[in-house]
Amino acid sequence: MKKNVLIIGAGGVAQVVAHKCAQNNDVLGDIHIASRTLAKCEAIIASVKEKNALKTDGKLEAHALDAMDVDATKALIEKTGAQIVINVGSAFLNMSVMSACIETGAAYIDTAIHEDPMKICETPPWYANYEWKRREEAEKAGATVILGAGFDPGVVNAYAKLAYDEYFDKIDSIDIVDINAGNHGRYFATNFDPEINFREFTGQVWSWQNNEWISNKMFEIGKEWDLPVVGKQKAYMTGHDEVHSLSQILGVPNVRFWMGFGDHYINVFTVLKNLGLLSEQPVKTAEGVEVVPLKVVKAVLPDPGSLAPNYTGKTCIGDFVKGTKDGKEREVFIYNVADHKEAYEEVGSQGISYTAGVPAVAAAMLVATGEWDVKKMANVEELPAQPFLGLLNKIGLPTRIKDENGDRALEF
Amino acid sequence: MKKNVLIIGAGGVAQVVAHKCAQNNDVLGDIHIASRTLAKCEAIIASVKEKNALKTDGKLEAHALDAMDVDATKALIEKTGAQIVINVGSAFLNMSVMSACIETGAAYIDTAIHEDPMKICETPPWYANYEWKRREEAEKAGATVILGAGFDPGVVNAYAKLAYDEYFDKIDSIDIVDINAGNHGRYFATNFDPEINFREFTGQVWSWQNNEWISNKMFEIGKEWDLPVVGKQKAYMTGHDEVHSLSQILGVPNVRFWMGFGDHYINVFTVLKNLGLLSEQPVKTAEGVEVVPLKVVKAVLPDPGSLAPNYTGKTCIGDFVKGTKDGKEREVFIYNVADHKEAYEEVGSQGISYTAGVPAVAAAMLVATGEWDVKKMANVEELPAQPFLGLLNKIGLPTRIKDENGDRALEF
Repeated sequence: MKKNVLIIGAGGVAQVVAHKCAQNNDVLGDIHIASRTLAKCEAIIASVKEKNALKTDGKLEAHALDAMDVDATKALIEKTGAQIVINVGSAFLNMSVMSACIETGAAYIDTAIHEDPMKICETPPWYANYEWKRREEAEKAGATVILGAGFDPGVVNAYAKLAYDEYFDKIDSIDIVDINAGNHGRYFATNFDPEINFREFTGQVWSWQNNEWISNKMFEIGKEWDLPVVGKQKAYMTGHDEVHSLSQILGVPNVRFWMGFGDHYINVFTVLKNLGLLSEQPVKTAEGVEVVPLKVVKAVLPDPGSLAPNYTGKTCIGDFVKGTKDGKEREVFIYNVADHKEAYEEVGSQGISYTAGVPAVAAAMLVATGEWDVKKMANVEELPAQPFLGLLNKIGLPTRIKDENGDRALEF
Repeated sequence: MKKNVLIIGAGGVAQVVAHKCAQNNDVLGDIHIASRTLAKCEAIIASVKEKNALKTDGKLEAHALDAMDVDATKALIEKTGAQIVINVGSAFLNMSVMSACIETGAAYIDTAIHEDPMKICETPPWYANYEWKRREEAEKAGATVILGAGFDPGVVNAYAKLAYDEYFDKIDSIDIVDINAGNHGRYFATNFDPEINFREFTGQVWSWQNNEWISNKMFEIGKEWDLPVVGKQKAYMTGHDEVHSLSQILGVPNVRFWMGFGDHYINVFTVLKNLGLLSEQPVKTAEGVEVVPLKVVKAVLPDPGSLAPNYTGKTCIGDFVKGTKDGKEREVFIYNVADHKEAYEEVGSQGISYTAGVPAVAAAMLVATGEWDVKKMANVEELPAQPFLGLLNKIGLPTRIKDENGDRALEF
């Protein structure tokens, strides 16, 4: 049983995590928020207080921290007495924050795979490049390290695990589909850090098909999906973290990820990419200023956090799973629908941040209660799905299923 | 009678000017090329020598010069004995180079209006903001200052003057149409300095209609034109230097400029502009690097000079003039067609640089022979058109006319 949470990061997802931790501080204990910019942590705390989100009286504190600095992170973990660290900072921080957790015995939870700022779309399976190299170290230390506990990766991995355990004898394919049918009213914006967003799409698209890694170009393979609530939507095969774990851990021959993109997004992305403006390699201006083009694009785009107040519409994210059960072929779609405006009203963030942040808090609560305090490194599909999805039903991200018996809520 | 030429600048247009001066050094005398980067001047000299372009033996020398430094420019004019300065450097240099010329008595010739790096599309008429303020000063000093002697502005002003003198009693409208039907084979590139190119289109579009300044947005007003050789082409009303002088000097009630753009150019431009990437105002990256987005765009785009070897196709630039002659309404189109590949074979530059550079050399030759050595400031339409167009017929940019009597070459 662990308690007291340290949240690393102070962006849109951290805001959601802070609110949800506050709403469940009877289970989680003290809440600490740390990022390079103290003022951003303080703004989140002000927002939590404004909504009276703390369930019971308890600590809610801001800290300035460079989370690349392992010793400083260890010192803060020890000073705060945090036994659970939720890392929702930049994807470049994972390895250093994980080190601080393993060395102090705090549980580690993140929502996205580690990235090296100078590399894009590395060799699959991506987890084997960084995280999985440390499995033995984590187990030896008895450290609970939960990888990718956001929505995708995260909840979609639990959907896959649920299908694997309950609905199929044998799974042939898992197609994860992520549609944001929301509207932020701006000419163009990304829903999370533009740098991380674009980096997902500038390299090769890796998918797992017929038990092999297949490489495609971005926007090369598109398909229209007919989804509950958001209707028919075009989505494109995209590289994504969970393809790299599900394929290896569940032994399913086909795992693909599809993300919805409108023609306008694709056009803007294509222009920027073809001009070289999404490059992570520095260029020099005629005046001698050296700068990474992608960072300039990030600087001119709207701050994703600023989109929340005017965001309307819904997201639909889920797993189409095909296979056989009792000798018969079947297909199920396990999914969640979230609403941008409801998310903003509850926690002051838009729906994309909401779906990423709430699951990390559910994971933290399961570590706190012991159900997920596994004392080793685990991807979400290695953990029992039912308590996770049951908790998410209660705290804002209910699971539904659509199959031959209709479209209905799932209770656990 | 003046001789010896100092060329300021070492880009694509300067390359054309150097070659054409060399081909006519029996009239022009010594040739000097100066820019910030000595190596660029030396590369132009090597190209002139490779083509054996010098008509008679003569000086051809490179110099390093910061042309924003008036004293340094004066010293170079005096050292080289240049009596004619052709300024084909950045549009930000005009005022300082002009000062050096007026103070030393050298004739000044440029091909584009002065620009302030921090301002875009100023109050019309643009010439009144900088150049025309110095008319009196030039006349008092007896300095020959010829403004805008490229193709547009320049040759199109002479076409207007020719129409005014020869083909009409009264002109109702001048529509200048600039079509580049060439193909450089790259995803996207500008034909001259991207910074100057984009700056033309990011502000308001000023046109002179019914004796008033009218403001529109870029790409707001488009029209299909049917032109000789290049055929039907869509062009958009654009702000351009010559609208600002022709309207004031010839007293014509309607002067408009139309530039051809393909849908692809417009799409790329629109994306960059709407994202804020064409801004001349600095932004700061998350890492604290301060940089002007437009300069980063310039850094990632192809160097316009690099397009020349593979450029194919033709340009068509000319004046549609409407009015009355002997009581009857009439319309003429006076124009030139240039070929990218022929330009490259002759002078190592593409057609856009060729059409801008050759007229400046024709102007210099007319100053050298005295015909245009007017000892005051003048836009091209204030000078006799026939000797200028007659010389251009001989040195690479022949004039044609299309009217009720057909389509034919014009001889002078």
